[in-house]
Amino acid sequence: MSISTTMIYRIEMNTEQVTFGEVATAVNGAGGDVIAVDVIRAGKPYTVRDITVQLKVDVHRRVAEAVASLPGVRLVHESDSTFLAHLGGKIEVVPKTPIKNRDDLSKVYTPGVARVSMAIHEDPSKAFTLTAKRNTVAVVTDGSAVLGLGNIGPEAAMPVMEGKAVLFKQFADVDAFPICLRTQDPDEIVEIVKGISPTFGGINLEDISSPRCFEIERRLQEALDIPVFHDDQHGTAVVMLAGLLNALRLVGKTIETVKVVVCGVGAAGAACIEMLLAAGARRLIAVDRCGALLPGVDYGQPTLNRIAARTNPERLSGPVDEAIRGADVFIGVSGPGVLTVADVRSMARDAIVFAMANPEPEIDPELAEPFVRVLATGRSDYPNQINNVLCFPGIFRGALDCRASRINDEMKLAAAKAIASLVTDEELNEQYIIPSIFNEKVVKHVQAAVVAAAVRTGVAKRIPPEYPMEVGMSVVLP
Amino acid sequence: MSISTTMIYRIEMNTEQVTFGEVATAVNGAGGDVIAVDVIRAGKPYTVRDITVQLKVDVHRRVAEAVASLPGVRLVHESDSTFLAHLGGKIEVVPKTPIKNRDDLSKVYTPGVARVSMAIHEDPSKAFTLTAKRNTVAVVTDGSAVLGLGNIGPEAAMPVMEGKAVLFKQFADVDAFPICLRTQDPDEIVEIVKGISPTFGGINLEDISSPRCFEIERRLQEALDIPVFHDDQHGTAVVMLAGLLNALRLVGKTIETVKVVVCGVGAAGAACIEMLLAAGARRLIAVDRCGALLPGVDYGQPTLNRIAARTNPERLSGPVDEAIRGADVFIGVSGPGVLTVADVRSMARDAIVFAMANPEPEIDPELAEPFVRVLATGRSDYPNQINNVLCFPGIFRGALDCRASRINDEMKLAAAKAIASLVTDEELNEQYIIPSIFNEKVVKHVQAAVVAAAVRTGVAKRIPPEYPMEVGMSVVLP
Repeated sequence: MSISTTMIYRIEMNTEQVTFGEVATAVNGAGGDVIAVDVIRAGKPYTVRDITVQLKVDVHRRVAEAVASLPGVRLVHESDSTFLAHLGGKIEVVPKTPIKNRDDLSKVYTPGVARVSMAIHEDPSKAFTLTAKRNTVAVVTDGSAVLGLGNIGPEAAMPVMEGKAVLFKQFADVDAFPICLRTQDPDEIVEIVKGISPTFGGINLEDISSPRCFEIERRLQEALDIPVFHDDQHGTAVVMLAGLLNALRLVGKTIETVKVVVCGVGAAGAACIEMLLAAGARRLIAVDRCGALLPGVDYGQPTLNRIAARTNPERLSGPVDEAIRGADVFIGVSGPGVLTVADVRSMARDAIVFAMANPEPEIDPELAEPFVRVLATGRSDYPNQINNVLCFPGIFRGALDCRASRINDEMKLAAAKAIASLVTDEELNEQYIIPSIFNEKVVKHVQAAVVAAAVRTGVAKRIPPEYPMEVGMSVVLP
Repeated sequence: MSISTTMIYRIEMNTEQVTFGEVATAVNGAGGDVIAVDVIRAGKPYTVRDITVQLKVDVHRRVAEAVASLPGVRLVHESDSTFLAHLGGKIEVVPKTPIKNRDDLSKVYTPGVARVSMAIHEDPSKAFTLTAKRNTVAVVTDGSAVLGLGNIGPEAAMPVMEGKAVLFKQFADVDAFPICLRTQDPDEIVEIVKGISPTFGGINLEDISSPRCFEIERRLQEALDIPVFHDDQHGTAVVMLAGLLNALRLVGKTIETVKVVVCGVGAAGAACIEMLLAAGARRLIAVDRCGALLPGVDYGQPTLNRIAARTNPERLSGPVDEAIRGADVFIGVSGPGVLTVADVRSMARDAIVFAMANPEPEIDPELAEPFVRVLATGRSDYPNQINNVLCFPGIFRGALDCRASRINDEMKLAAAKAIASLVTDEELNEQYIIPSIFNEKVVKHVQAAVVAAAVRTGVAKRIPPEYPMEVGMSVVLP
């Protein structure tokens, strides 16, 4: 898969030697699409123009060379709209109200602020009403497993964490701030996050490699009284479950009875398995590179052992092509090429396949589609995209609103059901099992469901007074 | 000194029993000043009104009780405008450009962001152009010496750090983010700040107690290639020097020849002494609780020993009332009551006294004024306020613009001279030696001077192209 972008080529043309038509033809011939032209400086015979071109990233050099090689054309510079969108960073830290004069200053800073500080000193829980802690989440990474790019380090992870902060604010009005760590040592990561925690109302762990992520999350959850949530695990699991519940509704099967194969037991895979178990799945087989996990076997890692103990009651062994035979559901969180057409054809009637490896799914969707009833991927260019953006903004919005001390299974389950509920029976079909990330109801539904579950399970330290009136729905969600 | 605030009292009045005039009289009688009245609900005989009252904090309870004790009045609730200004915190993290559709999303997040991340992975210095690091400063505290309040802890420090972030953004468009630490152990603080440093372009240490602050700052400066600046030390020192240079200009003395006594060798005092030495002061005596520091004596602390070795060449000993005899300049960064009228009278002709202890100066300004030529304090209710806000926004603006690896003495000296230069010869007088913090030229002058000094001393990694045109002045500042 090649990614699209928009390039702007600034060229100086000698109009006695070349016409703009020739330039446009060269662009098209090299695989680009001219979408705008701006005259920067007109003159005779030299003019300077900005040519905006839509293209796939991998033909960019070819287009530039095709333009530059025309007689009478000089390529002054080229700029890439994706890089332009990142110039100087994507987030800023702004005052909620400006300081206009000395009186304002003496309220938000010395001497007035001293009274606010002393009020918090006397009762530290007041930090949740009188400081930004109330609404602020740290997006913490060590850069060890960034997107599908691998261990690229903290500086290179920063644009992703900033992007996440943009999504948090825009979708759920959560103030999120990137914390990119110099270290990849779990002990140090735990100590650092504990150390900076007084500023924050929640911790979103992000793009930390497996199995380190399990230990880091667990230790932080035990140490802190604010929610700690590794989105690569639980965000994926929640949205997967939302899609699966609707897919099952469509085909008329129930989660308690279907045979489910989960392929891949990394961060996302482990969380998907835990989520499926919490949702009631019983005939669940986890498959990693070495085949189906078997109860009682020691896999040398607590998370794998725990999963092995709780899955595969029929003790099926062997690789994925054996495990998948007769399965109702395949959940892929592994890598490209794991699944063949023959594998898919060996599944039960009305097969459901979630091929979520990114950017290349476990099987080419075009190949799988004829043989399955419902197909979902992680990609935006096919129907049924399983995208964490449906989950994390609303989950944290709800957790912050009720000052939840943690995000437990009940809250995640409630979030998944809330997302699923947004697709009505009338709307539900093979191409539409999950709402769009731009559906504005998603965050409000997830938030309300999460608050209700937190209150019900006793982890909420506050019942939001504005709730549920503001949300405009009953607290008891499906 | 009592702090002013604005209270809003919501009262329900039985208009058959009490008139509004009686309420206003009660407020005035208790020491408050009614500045606005809003009718919330009119009715007969009961009406509800919000009465906005300006008052000193310490009479607030008296006013509330005076109102509540009137017949026919019920105090519904009271709110304090300073606390209202802090509700939910004072800062937020916002996207620089919103995501409007899938195309925007694919630029600032996956899949587009992957190319930006890889560009930084190949050249980490690109983090300074393609991420928020370029413009972002951590405001780091352990809550050990917050304002004059002492060791009140990280949660209680948060409103102060948020206030600082507001000032950074508003005065210099620097994105500053509070990091309030759970630990007060210097080793842990150093490790945590190193750990989170990839996110930031600079570190502003704040309200960390002495002498721990010296070691923490030094170790971080050695470990990091971004500026680390303890504002309580250097901010104070820079603004003090700016004021002092102008005071000396006014009285026609030079820094090289005057006798200067600095009282207090904590964070701010130590930095003032180093700044004065860097500016050329030679007849400098540092006085702490035990008297004047003497060269060669071991004070059991590296900072004190270094200062002792470089000051007091005449080896004067004894307490402040002996050291101050015949002094031209007194710099107080200690506490209230340190200086007597007799001390001030024993100074040389045209004495300059900076009594900067906060909120209570070393001597009551009313008592000192008749006997000194120039008096400055840290307070806003007397002329010549020595306020760090004159320094830190511009210093960091300049350091970030030229990607300085540190903030060295030359940059601080340049900042002090830039601040001083904003008071012209015509304007300069005993009541006006330092510009107002609301003078918009301050940040631009400091920024330009800091960039020039950084370039000159080889710590700048970039010469800002927009500079000096944007600033509209020559790079060579006084």
